[in-house]
Amino acid sequence: MQGLITRITDSFSRQPAMQLLGAEIGRVETGFTEIVLPFDIKLTQQHGFIHGGVIGAVLDSACGYAALTTIPEDAGVLTIEYKVNLLAPAKGDHFRFEGRVVKPGRTIVVSDGAGYAVQGGDEKRIATMTATLMAVHGRDDVKD
Amino acid sequence: MQGLITRITDSFSRQPAMQLLGAEIGRVETGFTEIVLPFDIKLTQQHGFIHGGVIGAVLDSACGYAALTTIPEDAGVLTIEYKVNLLAPAKGDHFRFEGRVVKPGRTIVVSDGAGYAVQGGDEKRIATMTATLMAVHGRDDVKD
Amino acid sequence: MQGLITRITDSFSRQPAMQLLGAEIGRVETGFTEIVLPFDIKLTQQHGFIHGGVIGAVLDSACGYAALTTIPEDAGVLTIEYKVNLLAPAKGDHFRFEGRVVKPGRTIVVSDGAGYAVQGGDEKRIATMTATLMAVHGRDDVKD
Amino acid sequence: MQGLITRITDSFSRQPAMQLLGAEIGRVETGFTEIVLPFDIKLTQQHGFIHGGVIGAVLDSACGYAALTTIPEDAGVLTIEYKVNLLAPAKGDHFRFEGRVVKPGRTIVVSDGAGYAVQGGDEKRIATMTATLMAVHGRDDVKD
Repeated sequence: MQGLITRITDSFSRQPAMQLLGAEIGRVETGFTEIVLPFDIKLTQQHGFIHGGVIGAVLDSACGYAALTTIPEDAGVLTIEYKVNLLAPAKGDHFRFEGRVVKPGRTIVVSDGAGYAVQGGDEKRIATMTATLMAVHGRDDVKD
Repeated sequence: MQGLITRITDSFSRQPAMQLLGAEIGRVETGFTEIVLPFDIKLTQQHGFIHGGVIGAVLDSACGYAALTTIPEDAGVLTIEYKVNLLAPAKGDHFRFEGRVVKPGRTIVVSDGAGYAVQGGDEKRIATMTATLMAVHGRDDVKD
Repeated sequence: MQGLITRITDSFSRQPAMQLLGAEIGRVETGFTEIVLPFDIKLTQQHGFIHGGVIGAVLDSACGYAALTTIPEDAGVLTIEYKVNLLAPAKGDHFRFEGRVVKPGRTIVVSDGAGYAVQGGDEKRIATMTATLMAVHGRDDVKD
Repeated sequence: MQGLITRITDSFSRQPAMQLLGAEIGRVETGFTEIVLPFDIKLTQQHGFIHGGVIGAVLDSACGYAALTTIPEDAGVLTIEYKVNLLAPAKGDHFRFEGRVVKPGRTIVVSDGAGYAVQGGDEKRIATMTATLMAVHGRDDVKD
């Protein structure tokens, strides 16, 4: 389990895009990854909420890392596609994104994602995603 | 036409998230918006390509602004959902994203998006999107 | 509750397409609808499994009826879009499709769907969907 | 070219589900397949239009056959996922569905689809799709 967490955290720390957004790895389990995003005015759109594209980007990462927890250590994953529904304005102190593998596989892995806005003690669902990932085996340039 | 370009450029300049990514408005026409994104190492994932989530985010903006060009000036648009297929690694000097309205409407607008990586004189298709937008009329907090 | 079940069952019985496929309404609750589909060779593709398009069609109905359970009696729903991932070959004695509202709303309703193949006592997940529906109020031609 | 047309037509004729709907293969080219669907009351939903699930099913087939035209003869394709936007009510004498490969590939093929309602001499866009297909090589049970 500790190996799994280290694998995901190490990989995540090598993603400049996620650092630019200020996203952080949360809970990690086999088939599951959580990412936490603090509110930052730099991430907003013109109405003051977190940009829907940022929501999609972080949720895509959560889905991809959830997939990575289910494939061998010498393999990596590439996102084939993702689809996100924005359910409510992304307004909160911070945001939680969960990726969960709904179908593991040697080549194709499918993850569902859920996004939540947290304000005070309240949590509100703000997004739902389905992502399709491809596991890539034996290529050094696509690993973790 | 100049009014249209000003409307889109003004709105875009009020999106901190797009500035954070370094995205710039390109060509604007009724039913069409182009966004240009220079390569920046800050936008990459662990394999050195632009993060798929960033591709989705900028393409979502292109689709949304294409929709905005087709609705009245007192209205705004909200993204209901978008779906992106990543067709090839996002490797290039810069990237072009096109949003194009495939179905205008009073309430629901559907845009298709296309992403291209440009390297030297070569351009390669890297992404395809379909986005569903909702036009919101008469609300000061959702305008342009 | 009985009113709700009658509303959904009546509407479903007026869908010739669902009768052509042999689909039947199962459990109905507020925010939830189940549809059951017996295996029929007429519904297969060239490899002997239920056609993915049929899976999508029945799951779309389950998602739409789940949405209908959450909106007023004088309103109807139209599908704006749906996205389905086919997770495993649709091979079984019969199939169960669940639609569940993940976000109710006056105008936009989002439902998640899940498909299962049932063979003997075993049930296997074969599909996942997200659908976006529009509630249409006060139009006699779009009612239930 | 004749070989290509025969390959697609033969495979299509082995899909009972498409026959049940009354769908017919139209134009076939490398990377492109058209399917034609005559109006039939059996295919409608409760408002008298062709059921959105039927639109999705036929468009999925068009996208899948477009993909099949681009892969070797000993290989077959499986649909991983598809996403369809229903742009207008499917009302017409007949319907045309076009599938077009936007990204060929050895393993993953992506097709875009477009649906049209034809009434008299008029043609109206009614649907847009993106589908992801997996090419399966060397398996006798997944061939054409």
